[in-house]
Amino acid sequence: MRAQLIDQLIAISGENNVLTQGDLSAYLQDWRKWWEGRAVAIVRPKTTQEVALIVKACAQENVTIVPQGGNTGLVGGSIPDSSGTQVVIQLGRMNSVVRIDKANMTVTVQAGCVLASLQQQAREAGFLFPLSLGAEGSCMIGGNLATNAGGTQVLRYGNTRDLCLGLEVVTPSGEVLNTLSGLRKDNTGYNLRDLFIGSEGTLGIITAATLKLYPLPAANATSWAAVPDVDKAVELLGLAQNRLGSSLTGFELMCASGLHMVTKHLQQLRVPFSDDLPPYSILLECSGSESADRTRSSLESLLEEALQRDLISNVVVAETFEQSKQLWSIREHIPLAQVHEGPNVKHDISLPISSIPEFLARSASALCAAIPGVRIVNFGHLGDGNLHYNVLGPEGEDAKRFLADHEDQVTEIVYRTVADFGGSFSAEHGVGAIKVHALETYKCPCALDLMRSIKKAIDPHNLMNPGRVLAATSARPIQVPDSR
Amino acid sequence: MRAQLIDQLIAISGENNVLTQGDLSAYLQDWRKWWEGRAVAIVRPKTTQEVALIVKACAQENVTIVPQGGNTGLVGGSIPDSSGTQVVIQLGRMNSVVRIDKANMTVTVQAGCVLASLQQQAREAGFLFPLSLGAEGSCMIGGNLATNAGGTQVLRYGNTRDLCLGLEVVTPSGEVLNTLSGLRKDNTGYNLRDLFIGSEGTLGIITAATLKLYPLPAANATSWAAVPDVDKAVELLGLAQNRLGSSLTGFELMCASGLHMVTKHLQQLRVPFSDDLPPYSILLECSGSESADRTRSSLESLLEEALQRDLISNVVVAETFEQSKQLWSIREHIPLAQVHEGPNVKHDISLPISSIPEFLARSASALCAAIPGVRIVNFGHLGDGNLHYNVLGPEGEDAKRFLADHEDQVTEIVYRTVADFGGSFSAEHGVGAIKVHALETYKCPCALDLMRSIKKAIDPHNLMNPGRVLAATSARPIQVPDSR
Repeated sequence: MRAQLIDQLIAISGENNVLTQGDLSAYLQDWRKWWEGRAVAIVRPKTTQEVALIVKACAQENVTIVPQGGNTGLVGGSIPDSSGTQVVIQLGRMNSVVRIDKANMTVTVQAGCVLASLQQQAREAGFLFPLSLGAEGSCMIGGNLATNAGGTQVLRYGNTRDLCLGLEVVTPSGEVLNTLSGLRKDNTGYNLRDLFIGSEGTLGIITAATLKLYPLPAANATSWAAVPDVDKAVELLGLAQNRLGSSLTGFELMCASGLHMVTKHLQQLRVPFSDDLPPYSILLECSGSESADRTRSSLESLLEEALQRDLISNVVVAETFEQSKQLWSIREHIPLAQVHEGPNVKHDISLPISSIPEFLARSASALCAAIPGVRIVNFGHLGDGNLHYNVLGPEGEDAKRFLADHEDQVTEIVYRTVADFGGSFSAEHGVGAIKVHALETYKCPCALDLMRSIKKAIDPHNLMNPGRVLAATSARPIQVPDSR
Repeated sequence: MRAQLIDQLIAISGENNVLTQGDLSAYLQDWRKWWEGRAVAIVRPKTTQEVALIVKACAQENVTIVPQGGNTGLVGGSIPDSSGTQVVIQLGRMNSVVRIDKANMTVTVQAGCVLASLQQQAREAGFLFPLSLGAEGSCMIGGNLATNAGGTQVLRYGNTRDLCLGLEVVTPSGEVLNTLSGLRKDNTGYNLRDLFIGSEGTLGIITAATLKLYPLPAANATSWAAVPDVDKAVELLGLAQNRLGSSLTGFELMCASGLHMVTKHLQQLRVPFSDDLPPYSILLECSGSESADRTRSSLESLLEEALQRDLISNVVVAETFEQSKQLWSIREHIPLAQVHEGPNVKHDISLPISSIPEFLARSASALCAAIPGVRIVNFGHLGDGNLHYNVLGPEGEDAKRFLADHEDQVTEIVYRTVADFGGSFSAEHGVGAIKVHALETYKCPCALDLMRSIKKAIDPHNLMNPGRVLAATSARPIQVPDSR
């Protein structure tokens, strides 16, 4: 049966595009190399029609499917399980920008286009495609859509969902749903688009999308401010929103311990105020359709007002594009600095912005009571209510040992406190394989019932990425030995 | 059975809130008084818990439910059918703004709050709730969500969908889905919110929502420009987006024949350039977080450039807030002027903006070939690709007779041409009862199959607004005699 299926796959996509041997770790291991699975084959189709035929062939044999883009996800959602019975459909060969419609300000693109390439092609046509995130050199737009990726521009431009007007999807029965028309208003029935976006390949395979483009901002201005506490950071955010409106494009929060790790492990990066790190630092950026002078002067007026109101204690404004890039680079290198410091328990949470100060106080006190000496590093997109909230063992304690002993305990304290404030245990990373249990624990039971009904209605034989998002009996990927 | 159900409804919501006699036309007739239905009762619950109990009581007796807000819809989606076997759940008593969270910039509101009241309460708290449309004095936010209402601010702030962060919904089984938390990022499973938004009461009853607020713009500037043709109008839109970025908040197109009807029937309104109406006029508005002077000067620079490039032939800029309101009033009175002119065949269509000039040419030529002398009035939200495209009989021909003879023919020509350009036959009004057949004709069959599967999964007994959006055997409302 398996050989027969492989023959069919070869007939559809050609021998070179059905991988069954050699080093397949790029497809079978996740981005952080924490987990790995096995597969019957990796198929790399070139057209939507091929995808549809592959899905039909697999459905015929009752073989389950794992859709895969750049495989840069952090929750084990794009690799197969350990059973060795699944087929991975990898979309990297479907990587064309099909059309840029300037007057409609849209781009139609195949799912396997790498995000950075899409950004670049949009820029060459005179537009901004605003989605931007750490993995942009490898991740693919289909995966960004399937996981509703966030990133650094959400405050102004929204999540990937908000950038998408239409989708092409191959359904679990191998039919093609085509809504690529690029309409900004369309009230003809249920919103299928947003159901597929964020469903992590469990309802169908996104093969193409029509996405919004924006005018390239005429100018950016970037600043780095020292704030005494999180309350003031939240107040500064409100002031910035009021004074800058939609010109406010970035508002990133970084705690002192995170920046301390950057200064310690990545000495080539010059962290402002590093001699005496303030409790929190804010990277605040605005961009405008007006001149550089006007954009900068709007930012400077805001910062002056913030200084007068004691919301910030110190501030630097980037003088050049190069300096602005350096400031962003510090923010983006916090995760790497943490790797140097050793493993930690990671969380990607969101909260109502108004609750963040109280959440931080209460979660820290709960963690410190449970595990004396525990260290907390938090940073992230404060403007979106999204924090990367990481927990390390006490100074000097073996990090791997801490993880083995305390990971579940720490996560339970964090997620429980998040839930108390009406927050989310997965702001932008999704559920994948590793947060399935959290979903069952923390999601409203009525929502879970609805999700299960929808999954069953659209994918009655559970062929599409089974066990991801919603629990299944299917095998999970296994942890790569000694990977953390 | 019916008497027993009414007793149960009275036990839940009180005798005064279960209406079965007297003049119930406000609940049984649609806004334009074109159709009417009958009902077992109109129930007016005060709490979500009451809604859940009413749904359970109806489900028990297999009685179908019509959710109703302000009943201002234009597609017969919020009135019962002619069978007299349905229960209307009218949400007008659930009209509280529950909470304004200033730091999170969100408002949580019950479904029955009138849109204008919500706008007002947001403004009093120092924020803008940007949804704005003709019926705002009567329509309710729950209905706006159920139909994903559009309106005049979509270009900058999006449709109702884009303003919503969380929902509370009573499902067809009488369970309560609660996702009111107001998160800007939440990737924990399928997006149920956007499935209920725009589902027109066929999947559940929206009882409350958490919505985004925005800073009040510091200043607005409004202009009215004469453009020689639609190509130039599209070019002007692109230029305005480029120069004004997100400050561009309104871009409304009006054809000469529509404005001619305004000058003819509503002489108190002063239409610019009415002595020699240009082929098209544009209402262009921008708003900013900066001073009135700066906002106005940005607009004026754009208009100067547009004049130099011959995109516009003439322009006026409102000097006062009063003048700006007068300009908007002209745009908003086109439908009323058309009522004075006599009945016409109305369409609410959207297209990729780049296709609009060619669509207008091709649809006009098809209509004129089929019905010599036919008159076309088009106007609408060009910035969203959304046109209200209305067709009148030849000058002098009896309007009602024209409708009786040609309505179906005209609509088929228009919808078929819209479909040829990848457009939508319902941009903002929805499907309701009257566009069910159009949905079956023009929607991708794969999308229809998915919608039917979802409806069956969430509402297996077809209790919620049956026959709306998706076809059912249930009776339709009947046309009010001599109503058009």
